[in-house]
Amino acid sequence: MTTHADIRIIGFDADDTLWDNEPHYRALEKVFCDEMKDILPPEESSAELFRTEIGNLPLYGYGAKAYTLSILETALRLSNDRLPAASVGRILEAGKKLVDSPLRLLDDVEDVLKRLSTRYKLIVATKGDLLDQERKLRKSGLEPYFHHIEIMSDKQGPDYRKLLRHLDIRPSQFLMIGNSLRSDIIPVLTLGGYAIHIPYHTTWLHEKIEAVELPPERFRKFDSIAEIPDRCSWIN
Amino acid sequence: MTTHADIRIIGFDADDTLWDNEPHYRALEKVFCDEMKDILPPEESSAELFRTEIGNLPLYGYGAKAYTLSILETALRLSNDRLPAASVGRILEAGKKLVDSPLRLLDDVEDVLKRLSTRYKLIVATKGDLLDQERKLRKSGLEPYFHHIEIMSDKQGPDYRKLLRHLDIRPSQFLMIGNSLRSDIIPVLTLGGYAIHIPYHTTWLHEKIEAVELPPERFRKFDSIAEIPDRCSWIN
Repeated sequence: MTTHADIRIIGFDADDTLWDNEPHYRALEKVFCDEMKDILPPEESSAELFRTEIGNLPLYGYGAKAYTLSILETALRLSNDRLPAASVGRILEAGKKLVDSPLRLLDDVEDVLKRLSTRYKLIVATKGDLLDQERKLRKSGLEPYFHHIEIMSDKQGPDYRKLLRHLDIRPSQFLMIGNSLRSDIIPVLTLGGYAIHIPYHTTWLHEKIEAVELPPERFRKFDSIAEIPDRCSWIN
Repeated sequence: MTTHADIRIIGFDADDTLWDNEPHYRALEKVFCDEMKDILPPEESSAELFRTEIGNLPLYGYGAKAYTLSILETALRLSNDRLPAASVGRILEAGKKLVDSPLRLLDDVEDVLKRLSTRYKLIVATKGDLLDQERKLRKSGLEPYFHHIEIMSDKQGPDYRKLLRHLDIRPSQFLMIGNSLRSDIIPVLTLGGYAIHIPYHTTWLHEKIEAVELPPERFRKFDSIAEIPDRCSWIN
């Protein structure tokens, strides 16, 4: 028998937890690799882009604008500063499409939010760009279920500590649900909170981590968000 | 005699209220105008850039990355898609410098925050990019005075309504201090809050507005932030 948990607020990651995101980034990456195809094979262009992205993270952070700027920088470098203006134009245009890409909710998300929102305060806790995430939330039709969005510049221990202070709750009163072990699960468990991992079918390389032991009394992993309300004793 | 105000939280705009910002943007604009100098005189390049920026606001929002992308788009357009790769490189590089530009606090800011923070909860309420603003706040050394940063995707009525709901206070318990009548002052006064205008020596064209009548019982204008603690009856 588990002791009764005292969860007050449930945080949901947004991209690839509530809605599709990674495929849109991969589509822009493909535009970039196509522009580079006379210079490098796609997997090498991708590897170069990843290097640029990680290098720029402290400066640019996450999101579509950061990604577009990193692509332009990589394209310039790989083309030895001979990038045709037309390529710049196509990349900028594809970057705009990424910012405003259509939104597809993941299965069962709305049902689960509807059930949980009657008993808990729900928030969106996401990295990325506030404007982008607000736009997606509006498009999603999920706004009524959430108290507000928390945009975090990163999702590591200190960021969650700041979040909890801001929410004015103890770690044991917080449950985080998301697709990234690295960003949604491990830092929250480490602080003493609860976490549910719902893997998405693809994971951005930067979010991949080695297997780790997670505390079974505060951690669950489900294949679908639909399993949460019935299979998770903390929130019954 | 004024009735006693019941202000609980004071919101500070960040850019050009706590620290210099506009001059850094103007420096990047100059880099762009220089790249365009064989095509157009600087004032026309600037006007074209402003048009692009405003057109992109709904998509890109505010901040250095948005500005850099708008510059690249404008440069491509003005050059008739013949922009040299070297220009793209110089603009990207200057854009990075903008993101990481040195921070200069405005006069007396720290003193005023020190005095007010003993009696009020202070927050930063700013547009722009969370990562950028967190970085600036860290560089500024002002973090200890603020409860947290609120990043707003815009600063109009609905955005402030959302902010107040989030802060869980009534408009009459909120005072906003900033340099922009359009973004910091008028929407807050309209909701029923208090506002203090501290003009900065230059104003971004987008923030300029026509003269308007403002309610004297909830509005003040000072030349310097230093005047606030002693000359504003609501917060004595």
